[in-house]
Amino acid sequence: MNTCTTTLPSSRSTALRIDGDRLWASLMELAQIGATPKGGVCRLALTDLDRQGRDLVTRWAREAGMSVTVDKIGNVFMRRPGRDPSLPPVMTGSHIDTQPTGGKFDGNYGVLAGIEVVRTLNDHGIETEAPIEVAFWTNEEGSRFVPVMMGSGVFAGAFTLDHAYAARDTEGRSVREELERIGYIGDQEPGDHPIGSYFEAHIEQGPVLEDADVTIGVVQGVLGIRWFDCTVTGMEAHAGPTPMALRRDALQVATQLMQEVVASALRHGPHGRGTVGMVQVHPNSRNVIPGRVKFSMDLRNSTDALVDRQVDEVRALAARLEVETGMSIHIELVSSYAAQPFDGGCVQAVQRAAGQLGLSHMPVVSGAGHDAIYAGQLAPAGMIFIPCKDGISHNEIEDAKPAHITAGCNVLLHAMLERAGVCGD
Amino acid sequence: MNTCTTTLPSSRSTALRIDGDRLWASLMELAQIGATPKGGVCRLALTDLDRQGRDLVTRWAREAGMSVTVDKIGNVFMRRPGRDPSLPPVMTGSHIDTQPTGGKFDGNYGVLAGIEVVRTLNDHGIETEAPIEVAFWTNEEGSRFVPVMMGSGVFAGAFTLDHAYAARDTEGRSVREELERIGYIGDQEPGDHPIGSYFEAHIEQGPVLEDADVTIGVVQGVLGIRWFDCTVTGMEAHAGPTPMALRRDALQVATQLMQEVVASALRHGPHGRGTVGMVQVHPNSRNVIPGRVKFSMDLRNSTDALVDRQVDEVRALAARLEVETGMSIHIELVSSYAAQPFDGGCVQAVQRAAGQLGLSHMPVVSGAGHDAIYAGQLAPAGMIFIPCKDGISHNEIEDAKPAHITAGCNVLLHAMLERAGVCGD
Repeated sequence: MNTCTTTLPSSRSTALRIDGDRLWASLMELAQIGATPKGGVCRLALTDLDRQGRDLVTRWAREAGMSVTVDKIGNVFMRRPGRDPSLPPVMTGSHIDTQPTGGKFDGNYGVLAGIEVVRTLNDHGIETEAPIEVAFWTNEEGSRFVPVMMGSGVFAGAFTLDHAYAARDTEGRSVREELERIGYIGDQEPGDHPIGSYFEAHIEQGPVLEDADVTIGVVQGVLGIRWFDCTVTGMEAHAGPTPMALRRDALQVATQLMQEVVASALRHGPHGRGTVGMVQVHPNSRNVIPGRVKFSMDLRNSTDALVDRQVDEVRALAARLEVETGMSIHIELVSSYAAQPFDGGCVQAVQRAAGQLGLSHMPVVSGAGHDAIYAGQLAPAGMIFIPCKDGISHNEIEDAKPAHITAGCNVLLHAMLERAGVCGD
Repeated sequence: MNTCTTTLPSSRSTALRIDGDRLWASLMELAQIGATPKGGVCRLALTDLDRQGRDLVTRWAREAGMSVTVDKIGNVFMRRPGRDPSLPPVMTGSHIDTQPTGGKFDGNYGVLAGIEVVRTLNDHGIETEAPIEVAFWTNEEGSRFVPVMMGSGVFAGAFTLDHAYAARDTEGRSVREELERIGYIGDQEPGDHPIGSYFEAHIEQGPVLEDADVTIGVVQGVLGIRWFDCTVTGMEAHAGPTPMALRRDALQVATQLMQEVVASALRHGPHGRGTVGMVQVHPNSRNVIPGRVKFSMDLRNSTDALVDRQVDEVRALAARLEVETGMSIHIELVSSYAAQPFDGGCVQAVQRAAGQLGLSHMPVVSGAGHDAIYAGQLAPAGMIFIPCKDGISHNEIEDAKPAHITAGCNVLLHAMLERAGVCGD
């Protein structure tokens, strides 16, 4: 009698673990392609190195008995059949392109953890009711071509295929030309590929888990983001002959706003974030009072209402400073991303898996973008974070502990099995 | 009977005025050499244009009966004899080199006002007891070659002739080569040229006189200056995944110091000045928390003790912030210029002349560098400021009113006559 259940018999669940050494070895082997002298990886999207990486991962998938399809934006789907081929797959994935001075784990971990899940199911002869798929999405990093999260974005209809195809790198080569050149332009229409539910395992890229000494971050959702450019215009003048009372020092006004960006985030904790990352002072000369200061403002929070409160507070101070100083302050919205809570069922599947595996875990939010955001617009989705050393990512010194790599993959395995259903013999 | 007095008989003094139209015409003619489309002047030190300017001014001097000598750094001294050739000259001067986008008045006014003083004395057949000299000093602006105020600095022994000769422009040409090329390398040893007293007429290059609607600034002295570079080192991190509590945001600490630079200057008024003109944020990326911020601090005041108090206050805050935040703050002295009061006798001569001429006048300080600073280290010195439009200088839109140009030159004439002594018939 064939039955499929959402949980394994407890005796079996306890025994079912991925092979951490095998996963680690795969990570290190993939990291050789584009390896940098400092121990990082430079494997930009749609380069020859990206092709080599794609060829290696798809070879591993085929060796694990998976079929491989590619869509028109180069997203790759590696499928392990389920008992019921009419069911949409339980999918996991991430990306294998890196930053120019990237690390071994960002993206690559999520993809190879998916491969390891399939290898483990093979080892244990486990059949799932729904198919299992592992995806890697094209150009998540956006270092060579913008926009970022290109493959998953086209897949979710956030922008068109033609828009993505037309993007060019600094040497003028287009995404379409490069996809054709490396042989990863498929026939499948992006998005024309059902997803039952989606999980993504990823290093945290932040310091929260390490600071709390917790192994698994159960990601609740992604912070809403508002990006602004702010320009304060005063009057450029010589620092020597101009007394304080007759100055219109744009930087002095700007510093008050820069402080408010942070103060407002602190008032709307625990997930409020405020960052001024970029500052341009004009004319930027030692003995000239700044006549114009332009700076970026990055405001984030767990709900859009909270982000909007931060925005309102910064704007209110700007309006007051304009009146008080007579200087003009222009605040321009650059980008806006809505806060996105993940699906309750997927979040609980991750939490349950961590709990059953006896791993320390805590709810966290994702402050950065991931392919799971776009996937989550099409299907129930969830993410699994593991700690990374000093919270550092997008850096050649990015690092993660083998025990955490293994733990995150075990959580992925059991969360996916819960959603896919395990068939009895 | 021949007598020389320090004041003209009042009837004669009332009548003795410079020819404002002639002075203005000279200024406009000199401004044609290197004229820019926007109405400014680009006549960099020791260029062919500088040679043309030098040739024109020395031709005018010779036409006014003056002798011309040049020293080894290219400083030019144009002399009208006095009755007593053993007396050191009463000198006036400034510079005729300009900024790349300079104006018509900065420097040029002081030199041509001197020529106009001599022309006026010639017109009225006035003999002075001491010789009258008009100087123009090489490379005051420092745009093409550093250090600034090069000619007067070498003259005063602030740095050596060899140091100045070795300075090179961005194309690798040295001061010595360029002096030889334009034919203005003289035989006279710099400094080997006595000065009885020194006056310099100059546009204010600041907004104080215009704001107060006063014609003549009686310059009391030059502000002391301390230049620092300050570097705050925090920890670069991703703006999304890093919660506020775990950040080490170098910019947030830097903004507090930037505000203290200004607050401290305000506490030590009326001449305290504090400016942050230059800011570099690392890595200067919209979504990265700044790991390092470097910025300039320019602190000025009328006495060195007051400047030092400002320095102490900024340093005290830095020390407190280091303890509170655990970030490192490095403050490095870049340059220091002592405050320099001008000679009481020269200051009073300027004030008396302005008063006798019925011109509105007020005591002011010079916040900027001038050749008079170095001249004042060798001889009693004073300066005369006139308003410039909106306080703007080092800019092609630099402007001054003909009435103010004339008034300042009349003050120069009468102050010089007081010091030189007028001889009766």
